[in-house]
Amino acid sequence: MATNGTNGVNHNASKYDPNFTDHVINLMAPETKPRHREILTSLIKHLHDFCREVELTQDEWIIGVNYVNSIGQAYKKNRNEAWRICDVLGVESLVDEINHKIVTEKGLEPTSSAILGPFWSPDTPFRDLGSSVVQDMPADGQLTFFHGAILDAETKQGIPNAVFDMWQASTNGKYDAHDPEHQTKNNLRGKFRTDKDGKFYFYCLKPTEYAIDTSGPSADLLKIMGRHPNRPAHIHMMITHDDYIGVTAQLYPNDDRWLETDTVCAVKDDLLLDFKPAKNDPHGAVLDCEYNVRLLSKKYKPDSTMLMGNANGERLPEAHTEKP
Amino acid sequence: MATNGTNGVNHNASKYDPNFTDHVINLMAPETKPRHREILTSLIKHLHDFCREVELTQDEWIIGVNYVNSIGQAYKKNRNEAWRICDVLGVESLVDEINHKIVTEKGLEPTSSAILGPFWSPDTPFRDLGSSVVQDMPADGQLTFFHGAILDAETKQGIPNAVFDMWQASTNGKYDAHDPEHQTKNNLRGKFRTDKDGKFYFYCLKPTEYAIDTSGPSADLLKIMGRHPNRPAHIHMMITHDDYIGVTAQLYPNDDRWLETDTVCAVKDDLLLDFKPAKNDPHGAVLDCEYNVRLLSKKYKPDSTMLMGNANGERLPEAHTEKP
Repeated sequence: MATNGTNGVNHNASKYDPNFTDHVINLMAPETKPRHREILTSLIKHLHDFCREVELTQDEWIIGVNYVNSIGQAYKKNRNEAWRICDVLGVESLVDEINHKIVTEKGLEPTSSAILGPFWSPDTPFRDLGSSVVQDMPADGQLTFFHGAILDAETKQGIPNAVFDMWQASTNGKYDAHDPEHQTKNNLRGKFRTDKDGKFYFYCLKPTEYAIDTSGPSADLLKIMGRHPNRPAHIHMMITHDDYIGVTAQLYPNDDRWLETDTVCAVKDDLLLDFKPAKNDPHGAVLDCEYNVRLLSKKYKPDSTMLMGNANGERLPEAHTEKP
Repeated sequence: MATNGTNGVNHNASKYDPNFTDHVINLMAPETKPRHREILTSLIKHLHDFCREVELTQDEWIIGVNYVNSIGQAYKKNRNEAWRICDVLGVESLVDEINHKIVTEKGLEPTSSAILGPFWSPDTPFRDLGSSVVQDMPADGQLTFFHGAILDAETKQGIPNAVFDMWQASTNGKYDAHDPEHQTKNNLRGKFRTDKDGKFYFYCLKPTEYAIDTSGPSADLLKIMGRHPNRPAHIHMMITHDDYIGVTAQLYPNDDRWLETDTVCAVKDDLLLDFKPAKNDPHGAVLDCEYNVRLLSKKYKPDSTMLMGNANGERLPEAHTEKP
């Protein structure tokens, strides 16, 4: 019997009823759907283990109860607080990895996935290769010639007819839909179809860092952890092709100061961009950036679909209208 | 390398970034308070392990995000939805055990603790031993002579001057404050001080089972699990004494049909009551019930306080105004 000797009390943590968690799990009826049972069994186990592990006090538990209530109370149009808290705790990024990480038996991997974020638009227009997504040039914008190839991760050959859908915030940290005073619709958005060699090229801005909202329960959580609210600058991309598994990710300048401490934990090593000075660009670009994407054939994941195709059409767009 | 051979994909679960969870935890600043760090470290680990263990899909994650938001949206006066969900998942009962379970080195234990629930009142009056808490007798009420002793778990001697504070719902499943049409204030509530032998005795009702609210997110959770919303009948008690560790618990008729499946998971083996027919009771009681309580000296837990004393005075009463 483990004791610490003080006060003659047995402090063995296993003093707690060893059958309690199973008791709660076994309250589920036989007709509970198998996936519901699987998820709730794991959830109850981890929730109970958490309480026992930290020996949660009743005061702390009540703080937690009030905190959970406050999340839904802070929810409103363009503010999905539970989503934001998942981001702060790395849950969206982890779920993204769980759903998209794929490694072939030979160890080949496509370009990493990163969270979609709330700003993807189904209305983004196709643009010609070589054109610019910059409709409204901000005074401090750095025009960039962005180019690369979409490659088959196995054959290393370019993939023609793949779609490179991109979107980015302007230098004020805002996306078109949330900044109607300064940006026309579809500013800094565009879809490009790769050429016969799998190449894409267009003009955009070097992206700018921004902070997520600093009010409400998610901001309180950041404060308790002594964390900042900043996201590294990034360009979003969503790559699709009929025969290849799609990749949705965010691309970050490799000199960004928030790479290591991204507030939503969405940076991966192979998603970094190297912006170099442009030389004599015909359209006046001051920077040049090359990035190549690797895709794997759908034969490795025949049921693969992108998030927006997977999700309930009514539920996801609503959840996705948030300003981060 | 573990593979399952289909499609040439490596399905080893460890394919997920083994450093990601530590990365999120390590975002906490050095100045984070130690207890905050301890709690959030465990919370993040368990949350991430849960996601990986069930390989949570993005659709499922979004359902979870929407569900968490719905909890606070359902919160209102007399309806603390996060508290209720904790009850359904056994969390309040577990936290209660974590905070009150005590075993001496000799293996002695006081009477088990069980959750306080939302209906305790600070205004309950002291009543004389032998008096009745039944101010408003319902037609279907079964008057019970309730008696016993409060004993020192070590010496087995009665403890004089201990306070037995009790409260119960009427036969319609409602407590006085939520049933002003049928019950006067403090009906079915009373505090009794034990006599020189540690004995207490009074008249009350055999308690009646009732169901918790069957609307809202907590009820949706019960439905998914195929669980009923019923609580076994119970009498609440809160025992206090200056020199003994207090005990708050609920006492259940041993023939109740919901003992095994209590919707808030708060039944313990030593909290069962045996109601027997009364013989020639001078006040007309039809049932007789004896229950003895065991307490341990405060020397085993010098800092022990009851929940309502522990908690923030502004926070807890609010959280405790719920009708379950």
